[in-house]
Amino acid sequence: MKKIRSALISLSDKTNLKPLLQALKKNRVKIISSGGTFKIIKKLGFKCLEVSKFTNSDEILEGRVKTLHPKIHAGILNKRDNKTHSKEMKIRGFQNIDLVIVNFYPFEKAINEKKNHGKIIENIDIGGPTMVRAAAKNYNDVTVITSHEQYFELIDELKINKGSTSLKFREKMSRIAFTETAYYDSVITNYFNEISKISFPEKKIIHKKLVEKLRYGENPHQESALYSDSKSLLLNQIHGKTLSYNNYNDIFSALRISKTLPKNKGTVIIKHANPCGVSILDNKIKSYKSALACDPLSAFGGIVSFNFKVTELLASELKKNFYEVIIANGFDRAALKILKSKKNLRLIDASKFSLNENIKFNSFENSILMQSTDNQHISKKNIKIVSKKKPNKTQIENLLFAFNICRFVKSNAIVLVSNKSTVGIGSGQPSRLDSCQIAINKMDKFNNTQDEIVAASDAFFPFQDGIEKLIQSGVSAVIQPSGSIRDKDIISFANATGTVLVFSKTRHFNH
Amino acid sequence: MKKIRSALISLSDKTNLKPLLQALKKNRVKIISSGGTFKIIKKLGFKCLEVSKFTNSDEILEGRVKTLHPKIHAGILNKRDNKTHSKEMKIRGFQNIDLVIVNFYPFEKAINEKKNHGKIIENIDIGGPTMVRAAAKNYNDVTVITSHEQYFELIDELKINKGSTSLKFREKMSRIAFTETAYYDSVITNYFNEISKISFPEKKIIHKKLVEKLRYGENPHQESALYSDSKSLLLNQIHGKTLSYNNYNDIFSALRISKTLPKNKGTVIIKHANPCGVSILDNKIKSYKSALACDPLSAFGGIVSFNFKVTELLASELKKNFYEVIIANGFDRAALKILKSKKNLRLIDASKFSLNENIKFNSFENSILMQSTDNQHISKKNIKIVSKKKPNKTQIENLLFAFNICRFVKSNAIVLVSNKSTVGIGSGQPSRLDSCQIAINKMDKFNNTQDEIVAASDAFFPFQDGIEKLIQSGVSAVIQPSGSIRDKDIISFANATGTVLVFSKTRHFNH
Repeated sequence: MKKIRSALISLSDKTNLKPLLQALKKNRVKIISSGGTFKIIKKLGFKCLEVSKFTNSDEILEGRVKTLHPKIHAGILNKRDNKTHSKEMKIRGFQNIDLVIVNFYPFEKAINEKKNHGKIIENIDIGGPTMVRAAAKNYNDVTVITSHEQYFELIDELKINKGSTSLKFREKMSRIAFTETAYYDSVITNYFNEISKISFPEKKIIHKKLVEKLRYGENPHQESALYSDSKSLLLNQIHGKTLSYNNYNDIFSALRISKTLPKNKGTVIIKHANPCGVSILDNKIKSYKSALACDPLSAFGGIVSFNFKVTELLASELKKNFYEVIIANGFDRAALKILKSKKNLRLIDASKFSLNENIKFNSFENSILMQSTDNQHISKKNIKIVSKKKPNKTQIENLLFAFNICRFVKSNAIVLVSNKSTVGIGSGQPSRLDSCQIAINKMDKFNNTQDEIVAASDAFFPFQDGIEKLIQSGVSAVIQPSGSIRDKDIISFANATGTVLVFSKTRHFNH
Repeated sequence: MKKIRSALISLSDKTNLKPLLQALKKNRVKIISSGGTFKIIKKLGFKCLEVSKFTNSDEILEGRVKTLHPKIHAGILNKRDNKTHSKEMKIRGFQNIDLVIVNFYPFEKAINEKKNHGKIIENIDIGGPTMVRAAAKNYNDVTVITSHEQYFELIDELKINKGSTSLKFREKMSRIAFTETAYYDSVITNYFNEISKISFPEKKIIHKKLVEKLRYGENPHQESALYSDSKSLLLNQIHGKTLSYNNYNDIFSALRISKTLPKNKGTVIIKHANPCGVSILDNKIKSYKSALACDPLSAFGGIVSFNFKVTELLASELKKNFYEVIIANGFDRAALKILKSKKNLRLIDASKFSLNENIKFNSFENSILMQSTDNQHISKKNIKIVSKKKPNKTQIENLLFAFNICRFVKSNAIVLVSNKSTVGIGSGQPSRLDSCQIAINKMDKFNNTQDEIVAASDAFFPFQDGIEKLIQSGVSAVIQPSGSIRDKDIISFANATGTVLVFSKTRHFNH
């Protein structure tokens, strides 16, 4: 237990100050403060000594230098049970500071509010983090409070311990204090790296806020949590059970696709983080039905994502199947009524969410593999027609759609498309030939399309066998990146079979 | 351009000090220092003013308070072109500090050397980061140097600009300085969280060092880099082309499996981050041949990982196939000679690498999904035999092996095993039935095993169809987590067909 006799208070965010001051007064804690904090303490009617009076040294450089003083830092840093320290303090007439209550200049807020660079820089706090770090280092003797949310914990602690704090409490507050200083400087370094356009600095610091602890991870024996830049995502859950790790994983997979489809038309069905049906048909009911038709068995228990608003009619269709989650750019009131009849069904309004993903990473052991996102969305101008037979307009549209979906399918990926809808997706196979076969099997099993079928491959065909299988199954046009030593053979084969062959040049591996 | 007239030097790591001091002397820079740095500067024969003389204030509390003084910080923080600042400096007789050269107490080293908590805490630097942060904030006027690797850059800069530094240079050094302070406090906060056993704090800071920038990411149009806790991984590449992003991704997938197999026996072949063959046969040649036999087509261009040393005989077998990477716990000299004849083949000695993965995460947009690793390795005591027919010893061994491999196969996962080797792997399908079919197809295509076949499923069978297909294909024993509402039907079906059915209780989703 350490008795609190004196407190140094320096705050940018002055929330909840009154109950704190009342508790300090009750425990006869001497308060030292400066600037705006000093003024408000006096205004609230509490006694307070100015820092400049405490240090006997003026506040200078427009406040840049006020607490950076040996009297302050010796007051915080001296070890109370060290005789040399105590002697040095006594000789100089230095006094202990037992409690440091500081929050920092709002640097992150300044960035988010897009202030100019000069103003942002001025919001780098020097004195604050120094006091907090000093107090946190000396937690054996000193209590450090870094946010107004901790005031009530402090008030309770002082009450329980009659004006003292326990080592356990000081330890905890010290731990959080170092998180705050680390977080603060992480924001600063990432700001500087961003304006200098440096993606991969020598030392990389990733800083995130806890959105929520999840019930468990991919499996019940794993713990899990979701972190982000702010304490909530721009996904508004309006109904249903709490989201699980696997829900989030599927939702993220769905949004990556949904948000890149043509505006206001696109249905994506996801199962096990893989798309099992995508359609961009104009008619929204047809779009959903076509996406579902690609693999209705897999869709069971999956999640559906629309980049448009769900109508009553669509809701009645959706109700016929079992889904874990439905994501949309809003829901009509009548649609909501229908869907809310399913108690557990999670409904997500993603209309405020926009995709702006630049860096992607995943961990292994203590390592992180980091890369810029595969944002290559191809259009007509990116492709090269290499077969004698030229594609018609519909084929081109379907080829581009198929290839742009490939990007989101686990490699090796084969996507079959007919009439702006996938009709077969082969994913996650070590052999490209197997992915072809899986896509074809899906098509044969579930689809009765009368329209032409086109195919996309996320990487080149290493041998003729894959493309051969596709053509034999009725595919009339194929898009692939090219780059194999057998490209010529494959062009010849396309020509011999009267197939349209298009090179996209871009590869879309996704593991 | 800003002329450097005075420098404050405070170093824990005193490498390369001499050439720095020579350059400062040449440019008539006045040096201020204290403690150990002061002593070594004097010893090297250079002039130096003690900090205590500069501030006119003693160094106290065993060095805890020396530079935390208004004279130092006003000297750093004053804006040279601000009249009020200049006036305040002049009145007090404060002098400018134009250059701050500081590195910190070695906190990370103290942790790595497993010093006691008290010593670790003593290694939290307060004065150093404060000076660096102040100088970095005021980069418009002040140059900040945070590592001896930057000395030569500084020396060049002073030479080119005749004793001045450019804004560009100061900006760059400031950016790196904030990375250093952020990194430093990240290490501290993670140390405190670790000893407090907190995996998911309110604010999560991940700090990593660049191992290498990679040529590109998963695809050529993506930039990429590998980060880790130290500047190199414990993987020793002894031959071959530079490792690519996809190589690393495959190597990590391979090591996750290799390092969990029984010691000194285990072959894993990986393609597209998925295993396409695993064997734990005692005989190392047979082990490799069996792993390869599981899917020899997919193995082409894949990577092979052994958790034992590669012999000459094994090397001659390996030479027959095309691989991107071979990982092993070392290579015999004769083996190396054989394998090095393939110029591009990457050879990795992973004998020093041990797997100790606690947290796993991946990113989406600005979010991170984080979870404790799925480390559940099941053994005989974890399983429950639920069929009338009881498994024999070989079946149990094969069932456990199959289920423990499931953990590393992308969901839905089905693994068929015969004689301690996989004979069919079905992965990455939204439908469990499809994964069953893929595994069976592999087995039918490549395997002529005379031994019994067992099957593992990473999650329960939602319907009877999957297990039915497996049994029809010759599977005599099945292991699965259980948990379906149709578990009873599945037990009945196993009994009706004389199949061994075992519940593992643990699920192994892996997306």
